[in-house]
Parts: sequence; C-alpha cells; structure tokens
Amino acid sequence: MATGARLENISIVLVETQIPENIGSVARAMDNMGVRRLVLVEPKNCDLTRILRPATGSSVDVVEQMEVFADFKEALGPFQYVVGTTARIGAHRPSMTQPRRLAYDIIPISQENQVAIVFGPEDSGLTNEHLRYCHSIATIPTARFPSLNLAQAVMIFCYELFMASIDTEPRSVPRLANRFELEGMYEHMADVLKKIGFINPQNPEHWMLSIRRFLSRLPLRAGEVRLIRGICRQMNWYTDQYEKEKNRKGR
Amino acid sequence: MATGARLENISIVLVETQIPENIGSVARAMDNMGVRRLVLVEPKNCDLTRILRPATGSSVDVVEQMEVFADFKEALGPFQYVVGTTARIGAHRPSMTQPRRLAYDIIPISQENQVAIVFGPEDSGLTNEHLRYCHSIATIPTARFPSLNLAQAVMIFCYELFMASIDTEPRSVPRLANRFELEGMYEHMADVLKKIGFINPQNPEHWMLSIRRFLSRLPLRAGEVRLIRGICRQMNWYTDQYEKEKNRKGR
Repeated sequence: MATGARLENISIVLVETQIPENIGSVARAMDNMGVRRLVLVEPKNCDLTRILRPATGSSVDVVEQMEVFADFKEALGPFQYVVGTTARIGAHRPSMTQPRRLAYDIIPISQENQVAIVFGPEDSGLTNEHLRYCHSIATIPTARFPSLNLAQAVMIFCYELFMASIDTEPRSVPRLANRFELEGMYEHMADVLKKIGFINPQNPEHWMLSIRRFLSRLPLRAGEVRLIRGICRQMNWYTDQYEKEKNRKGR
Repeated sequence: MATGARLENISIVLVETQIPENIGSVARAMDNMGVRRLVLVEPKNCDLTRILRPATGSSVDVVEQMEVFADFKEALGPFQYVVGTTARIGAHRPSMTQPRRLAYDIIPISQENQVAIVFGPEDSGLTNEHLRYCHSIATIPTARFPSLNLAQAVMIFCYELFMASIDTEPRSVPRLANRFELEGMYEHMADVLKKIGFINPQNPEHWMLSIRRFLSRLPLRAGEVRLIRGICRQMNWYTDQYEKEKNRKGR
C-alpha cells in the first residue's frame, strides 16, 4: 500500500474518445496507479458493455463513477490546474513539460487543488483551442513513432504521478484559481482592454492569446485573480468617467 | 530523436501470451520507445491479422521481425542477462527491483550484452520455474490492484529504459555469461555436488535453488563461469581418483 501524498484530487479527462474499449483500458491503468476520477467530454461512443470489457477488478468502480460532459469548458470549470497532453510540438503552445517533471510539480498543487490531465481523441489529439485552456502542456518522450495508444499514454502519466506521490513529502500550495474564475478574469480583461484601445475589436484574440500564455506560465492563485479583476474594475470605472467627460464636452 | 545509450540489445520476451491483440499492443509500445526485438515463447494464439490490428505505424516492422520459440530455455539461451517481471511477491524469489532502478542498471549492461525482459501469460504471470532462470525480478509499483494489462506493463518498462537511455552516459560492462553457459555450469555443479554427497540425489533441486539464487544476485561474467567450471572439473577429477582408490582397496 502506498503512503505519501494523495492522488484523489487528480482527474483524467478524455476528450472526444472514439473507441469505448480505450475508456475501459484507461480506467484500469488509473486504478492500478490509484487515480480514481475519470471525466469524459463528448465521447463518440459510450457503449458501457464495450467500455467494461477491458476494465477488470476494481477499475469497474472507476467506470461506474465517471462523469460525462457535453461541453469542454463546462467539464474543466471546477479545476484549478489543467494539463494538456500532446504528441505534437507547435509554435503557439505554452511551456512544454514531461510526465516525470510534471508529476513532481503537480503532487504539491493537487493536495489542495483540483487538477485535470486532459487527453484528446485517438486520431488527432487536442486542438490548439483546447490547449489554450491548459496551464501547461506535457509530451511523453519517444524514440521515433510519437503516437502512443491512449490508454498507454494515460498509464505513463498515472505511473509517474504514483511514483512521485510515494516519493514526495506532502506539502501544500495555496488555493489556485479555477477555470471559472480564470475565464471570468480573461473576459473582464478583454472587455477593458478593448475599451482602452489596447485590443483591436476586429481581432481581439491576438493579444489575449499572448496574455493567456504569459499568465499561464505559473498557475494563478485565487487571490491573484481577485487582484487582477480589481484592477480591471478600476480601469472600467476610469473609462466610464472618460466617456462621460467626452459626452459632456461634446454637448 | 534520442541520443545517448543504445537499446538495440534489449529484447522483450512474452511467454505463453493468450490474446494476439496484446502482442500487437506490446509491439506498438516497444516501437514508441525504441525497443525493437520481440521474442514470443509458446504463444497460445499467433493469428497475425489479430496481432497486427493494434500495431500501427512502424511497429509493424517489430511484428514482422519477431522470433517465435517453442521452448523457454531455448529462447533464453543467447541472453547474458534475464529479467523476470511479476506482480506477485513470493518468498522463494530472487532480489526484487523496480522498473526505474532496473533501467539504470540495465542500460550499461546492454551496451555489450544481450538483455531479455520476460513477461508471463496475462492471467497467471511467470511461474517460479520461469523465475529461476532470471538474474533479477522486477515489479511495477501499484496503488492497489496489482495486475496490469500486459502491453501497459511492457510500456512502463520500455518507457523507463528509454528515459534511462537518454539520461545515461554510455559505459560498458564486461561480457556476461549467457544462459547456455550458465546452465552448463549449473549442470556441472549439480553433477559434482551429488558426487561429493553435498546434494541428496533424491531431492537435488533443494540446494541447487539456493545456489542459483546466490549466483544470480549479481550477473556472472563469462570468465567467472569458466573459473567455476574449472573448479568443478577439478572436483570431478578428485572424486574419480577417490572412487578408483575405493575400488582398489575393496578388491
């Protein structure tokens, strides 16, 4: 039996999984390594008989307790820290890490925060749109053929998390902002940055992407999000004053 | 692309595998991590169509180049270092290790020696009889349900080997004895130890098992095997002299 840090705040999130047997194999890998929370987003086929085929032993419980969502953002709402996994390396992607380093980073965060590790569909992986919501992106090092079987990729992450959990002194990290809080903050910022003319209303995403990338380099704490939103509120008040002034002068 | 130590002298040996798709999944996991040599011993079902189903990309080459043996000892003959894998922990088993520690031990050995990592059948694993031929035994740490899917277990070993190979300065270890040389030595010893009355001819395995366990704690070099056999030859000569003497006196 494992002693050490807990893994119960870590969830595996599978996005648009195509083959139901892969979901069962993922559940078994998770169960082997003591990761118990499975979240499905828009599974393409959710045939429970086929899911349960490779899910032996106590991994049946993982399948029975899994949650299914129709919307990616909705599913990620409650999480304070989100990790995207990908086989591809692209220019527009936040900082890359590997499962081993990631596991040692995540164990302390997960003692007080909900952490999601997100895997894309078998054939195509996560899109850039998905990865925009991730604090960090992890890639499994490979020798040549970079595309791993989904359940084998999940196994490597869960194995590294378990190895780190038995190796790590439990320590804690202050509560991080969850995705709802972060998205609220980004909307607030986009709104205010448009008002002050920093952002071109025709192409608002260009600068927001850079801001997201910058603010995702280290996971924001809930208090920091409150601080940023306080500044946004103040800027908003200021722009309102300015507009009023212009209107008054224009009269 | 990986730089660092080579993995080409490392083979995955699957004993009495029951499900052909598992063989294909093993090939894919190996290929991902740059381990290319697959050996099957007495596969229960070797349907190539089913084997190839999960073997995507260049893992097809691994399947096409795999070797199939009818006999366990025959298959292990050419290997200088043999690792058994098991989920069970038993009293009569040699020293236990974990995939991570094992990988760092094996990379230097494998630069000049053939190394086999052996996996048993899906339902029951390797027997004590199989494990007797192994220099070391490795178990994957797990949280609770100890039985891993075969291909996922192979993936963890190959992943750790790959991680160790990119982390390890290539260094070399003198040529180790292969299984043929070791079995020849053990037979020679058993023969001579019976003659001198150390071993009870009614139950020869009892002491031989302890000797095997002792001599497997560290991998024997070819020169060391030659030395031990030299001693056996000398003892043989001595017992022959003694027998002759007894017969002469008895006359």
